[in-house]
Amino acid sequence: MQRLHDTETRGFASDNYAGIHPETLEAIAAANGGHQIAYGEDHYTARLSEVVREHFGDAAETFPVFNGTGANVTALTALMPRWGAVIATGTAHIHTDEAGAPERVHGLKLLTVPTPDGKLTPELIETEAWGWGDEHRAQPLAVSITQTTELGTRYTVDEVRAIAELAHAKGMALHMDGARIWNAAAALDVPFREFTTEAGVDILSLGGTKNGLLGVEAIVALDPSRAPGLVYLRKLGMQLGSKMRFMSAQLLSLFDDGLGLRSAAHANAMAARLRGALEAGLADGTISGLGFSQATEANAVFAVLDNAVADRIRERVRFYDWDRAAGEVRWMTSWDTTEADIDAFVAVIREELAR
Amino acid sequence: MQRLHDTETRGFASDNYAGIHPETLEAIAAANGGHQIAYGEDHYTARLSEVVREHFGDAAETFPVFNGTGANVTALTALMPRWGAVIATGTAHIHTDEAGAPERVHGLKLLTVPTPDGKLTPELIETEAWGWGDEHRAQPLAVSITQTTELGTRYTVDEVRAIAELAHAKGMALHMDGARIWNAAAALDVPFREFTTEAGVDILSLGGTKNGLLGVEAIVALDPSRAPGLVYLRKLGMQLGSKMRFMSAQLLSLFDDGLGLRSAAHANAMAARLRGALEAGLADGTISGLGFSQATEANAVFAVLDNAVADRIRERVRFYDWDRAAGEVRWMTSWDTTEADIDAFVAVIREELAR
Amino acid sequence: MQRLHDTETRGFASDNYAGIHPETLEAIAAANGGHQIAYGEDHYTARLSEVVREHFGDAAETFPVFNGTGANVTALTALMPRWGAVIATGTAHIHTDEAGAPERVHGLKLLTVPTPDGKLTPELIETEAWGWGDEHRAQPLAVSITQTTELGTRYTVDEVRAIAELAHAKGMALHMDGARIWNAAAALDVPFREFTTEAGVDILSLGGTKNGLLGVEAIVALDPSRAPGLVYLRKLGMQLGSKMRFMSAQLLSLFDDGLGLRSAAHANAMAARLRGALEAGLADGTISGLGFSQATEANAVFAVLDNAVADRIRERVRFYDWDRAAGEVRWMTSWDTTEADIDAFVAVIREELAR
Amino acid sequence: MQRLHDTETRGFASDNYAGIHPETLEAIAAANGGHQIAYGEDHYTARLSEVVREHFGDAAETFPVFNGTGANVTALTALMPRWGAVIATGTAHIHTDEAGAPERVHGLKLLTVPTPDGKLTPELIETEAWGWGDEHRAQPLAVSITQTTELGTRYTVDEVRAIAELAHAKGMALHMDGARIWNAAAALDVPFREFTTEAGVDILSLGGTKNGLLGVEAIVALDPSRAPGLVYLRKLGMQLGSKMRFMSAQLLSLFDDGLGLRSAAHANAMAARLRGALEAGLADGTISGLGFSQATEANAVFAVLDNAVADRIRERVRFYDWDRAAGEVRWMTSWDTTEADIDAFVAVIREELAR
Repeated sequence: MQRLHDTETRGFASDNYAGIHPETLEAIAAANGGHQIAYGEDHYTARLSEVVREHFGDAAETFPVFNGTGANVTALTALMPRWGAVIATGTAHIHTDEAGAPERVHGLKLLTVPTPDGKLTPELIETEAWGWGDEHRAQPLAVSITQTTELGTRYTVDEVRAIAELAHAKGMALHMDGARIWNAAAALDVPFREFTTEAGVDILSLGGTKNGLLGVEAIVALDPSRAPGLVYLRKLGMQLGSKMRFMSAQLLSLFDDGLGLRSAAHANAMAARLRGALEAGLADGTISGLGFSQATEANAVFAVLDNAVADRIRERVRFYDWDRAAGEVRWMTSWDTTEADIDAFVAVIREELAR
Repeated sequence: MQRLHDTETRGFASDNYAGIHPETLEAIAAANGGHQIAYGEDHYTARLSEVVREHFGDAAETFPVFNGTGANVTALTALMPRWGAVIATGTAHIHTDEAGAPERVHGLKLLTVPTPDGKLTPELIETEAWGWGDEHRAQPLAVSITQTTELGTRYTVDEVRAIAELAHAKGMALHMDGARIWNAAAALDVPFREFTTEAGVDILSLGGTKNGLLGVEAIVALDPSRAPGLVYLRKLGMQLGSKMRFMSAQLLSLFDDGLGLRSAAHANAMAARLRGALEAGLADGTISGLGFSQATEANAVFAVLDNAVADRIRERVRFYDWDRAAGEVRWMTSWDTTEADIDAFVAVIREELAR
Repeated sequence: MQRLHDTETRGFASDNYAGIHPETLEAIAAANGGHQIAYGEDHYTARLSEVVREHFGDAAETFPVFNGTGANVTALTALMPRWGAVIATGTAHIHTDEAGAPERVHGLKLLTVPTPDGKLTPELIETEAWGWGDEHRAQPLAVSITQTTELGTRYTVDEVRAIAELAHAKGMALHMDGARIWNAAAALDVPFREFTTEAGVDILSLGGTKNGLLGVEAIVALDPSRAPGLVYLRKLGMQLGSKMRFMSAQLLSLFDDGLGLRSAAHANAMAARLRGALEAGLADGTISGLGFSQATEANAVFAVLDNAVADRIRERVRFYDWDRAAGEVRWMTSWDTTEADIDAFVAVIREELAR
Repeated sequence: MQRLHDTETRGFASDNYAGIHPETLEAIAAANGGHQIAYGEDHYTARLSEVVREHFGDAAETFPVFNGTGANVTALTALMPRWGAVIATGTAHIHTDEAGAPERVHGLKLLTVPTPDGKLTPELIETEAWGWGDEHRAQPLAVSITQTTELGTRYTVDEVRAIAELAHAKGMALHMDGARIWNAAAALDVPFREFTTEAGVDILSLGGTKNGLLGVEAIVALDPSRAPGLVYLRKLGMQLGSKMRFMSAQLLSLFDDGLGLRSAAHANAMAARLRGALEAGLADGTISGLGFSQATEANAVFAVLDNAVADRIRERVRFYDWDRAAGEVRWMTSWDTTEADIDAFVAVIREELAR
């Protein structure tokens, strides 16, 4: 099959636009050849389970799945009986970008809370955490947080712990949507377990695709006693891959030789470089007409600028509006973003703001 | 990531045990590098749509998905309103091997019919095709057939057409589960469209994984007017891949330079070689205690032998029981089965039958 | 509101065609007036719970619901996690007459078994009771039997017990669809608990509507530890009535002064009278062209006769075909069937068979 | 069955605490006797369909169901394919009081909007009415309003029309939850069709239970072309009653001799009397420590007072807190509230506020 695209074009639309890291492609090739038992009884999946336990704690059970929606919906379902509800932010991926999969596939009810920065707090959770025992109200039995958030912010270890404590005190389990957990780990600079298992997270959607994989995530039950039946739920939710060795090999590559943290730290650094260059320009007056709506704590820059300017920039480098009415755009960096990409993008932004 | 397995071991358990064909791995690598729009707006998915139209007809619309269960359940759901039911065989994968996904994910009702050979017929379909307008009965609005079947048999072009005519005459749509459609095409030796679109199939689960891909199938709406909303159903059913370029590249590789048909024809030939060698032994009296429960029309041999003998064979070469009470086993060949594999397996069977 | 119908016309179509027993209407009136807490915290629902415990055992918990489909689907759902499947007959109401509600509302998977007489046996159950731990197979976790069956037959106490023992030994729970449990109790002439709780039934759909109520059934958890969350499942399954006092009052009326057993025994006697009169005619040669396809063990007669004759009879007295291809019809009696109704119907049957 | 409750006690907790209007009980008795075809082919259901058409327009199709949740969820489901979402207020019954039934039974996604008074407006709807064609977003395809609202307010004809126009312009259908539509009709003093069909409502949940019935509501498809399959959806959603003649007779009683409007107008007048008496006391200084959080436009008074005072009042007369943190309580009147009840309640409120 011949190549159909330009391999030198990159933009700031999404970390999903980037391709496969070469080390991951090598891992896939290494797992190839001969026969391996399908559906997860292969050597790579066994090894992945071990590696995840090393990073997340001895109790951790790992279930590779196809995508983030599959990981989130399946993980949340495992936490709850049919009458459960999930407290999440109004900007949570499960609410805004999964086409209703939580509701439609497993009948989950979401109780959403508006936030300024994509982060739940104990106080915000309490606005929906009530009504247990009242048969008329969907029972709040889980909290879902995203790390790093959909708005490019991140939870500190203490913030996660405070949420977990509240959730557990109220009889609710805690799910972390870790589609970008590698960016969080790199930014927090602490071991995974410190801001997940040890902070009280019960189940995790462990991201991979956004950090240089071809396409795989994993559900990690950090406290498996809270998430019965995952082996069945994964299958009946159409998330069980047959040639799982290749799914597990991809995930293994991230834990191998620090690839996942290297890639994420790089993406974070590129976002910081972008934010820094633009803020410097604002500070010295060479840039105007630009603001920022969120802190840049991982690999995203949320900027505010005139729609017309944004559109002119976009004609040259691809990215998405976030809230057009507010002039808010999202610039994502990824494992393959280069310093030259950033510098060129800053130049384009400068030019178009100055026109 | 280091290799953890023996690349020289192969068995007859499943075509899902085999790995990735080297040409497919090359296709993935060719699609790598640079940025491509996520979720299907990439060049490879566009090209795949074209190629599928060349093979299946100008109306065909293609939706890559993660696995066969995802393809089947999503395709069937698109064919029907919420009150529809699907007529299928009692051995259909959707009934026996999808953990209830059709029922659980989208509330599909299956009306199953026992068959001797895994194949529906107009007569068999009519036993469940009744009750339209009766609100108490789930309304039969689709028929699902598997090509090649779960029992290693295949439908002729005329058989598919007869089913389609009955289905359409009764107001039902026709789905084909083509997890092994490549084996069918190779065995029938006719173009795809002849036993699908032109024979009246409305929607197809186009297999790939079992024929040497890493992991991807596609829903192909052959008559898109009968399957509205697939773009939404794929997403809300958690089957939308972000880096779809790599899913499409895999499927493209099968259409490229005849790879898919080559691989399937080879697998079929290996099954024929196995069946032939064993039948020759039975004919000349050098083998006894072995029978066959199904015709070998693609890449499977269904054999009947003593459980104890089967278990001794299995200690040396891996395969699955099909119906242990009946002494029935299934031997699957795949794209990577070698003639030497067959000959060695025949020798093992001979030895253990003779003990 | 004025009366719009003829109150003297009755037929043999269904026990659902009959109206409300006068004693039940009096019970509704007695429960009227003043305010009572809605949704089940009223005096009548409390009393119903007590009465049900007296009849079914001290552990029994009672949940009035609107109809039989609601009772069956909710009860079965309570017995199982999301990956469970239900073994039932191919003629079970949950499979044939609930429009797929079990699959659609709560994603239940049914594993159906053909039977000659509408009754499961341990042997029949074992044909589908396998595959626990295999994630590809919907997990058989419940058995559902109907008492009396959809074919007018009934289980003996020993037959129920044998099924319960098998089910429990295999880790499955036992549900009884008791839409016509009053007819069973009257026919068996043993206390309810003897063929339910004490025989090993875990959860019951306690019928009422078919036995002279306006419209209400109840889920009775005989072993509540096997059916968690019913209070929530009833509500989220849209089966929670607000003015529950009137639902409970109807059910109470059946337990009051023996009304339910009186009505059911009468209906059974009317079916026996019909069967007896026809068999007498067959025996003495005054009737020919008529056979019976099922035993008459409650309030149904399943007869076989020429379609044309059946149609002529039906022009005079209403009833349903059961299996037209087989010439099988169903004649149901009810609490309000009179001896004169039977005698007149026999006369009509005689006349039309003789034409 | 003997009476178990005091028929003279009434409170202000809910219009569901009230019993059956005597004229409705007479209607049930009139529909009793003889046999009538089950599941809706009876004379009373036919007549109900005619009567509803007289009031709501010639196209109206009527489907009696068991309760409001059943009516709302089934009606909304009929309006939308599986990918649809419903825009509603954050206080909508479908969001707050149906235990997640919309999500769980049919996978509906709700997009909720906060409002001060329980009423949507075109502007509020637009905050969620976007994203059509984006497969990641649940597609907004219906708007649901409640008339009168859960906060005791009501939409004017013009307000309904403006919402319908926006909804239709954007390709969305309009559902009205009319659990208290009789109170709205009485308060607006216009024919039903003027604020429903003619104002652009596509489908209606026609209330009955809260206005003196034993327990029945109806789905009324005002524009049946927008709501296909209701006959199937009602059944598969477990909302099809067998002895439907008694359900239809109840609804017919409301249309007979003006009963429904009489009852609702009375309930509204009782709320006005309560509000008026309290406001008079506030105006002349004989009452203090009391405020009102919503307009009283139907049969509810939302008041604000000290929790401790509210609790003392509640010990004497039953009612519910609405928002305890805000000191907000809800006082509902019903068809059987008497002027003496109001006067006594006002006296109690005065006493406890004065302590």
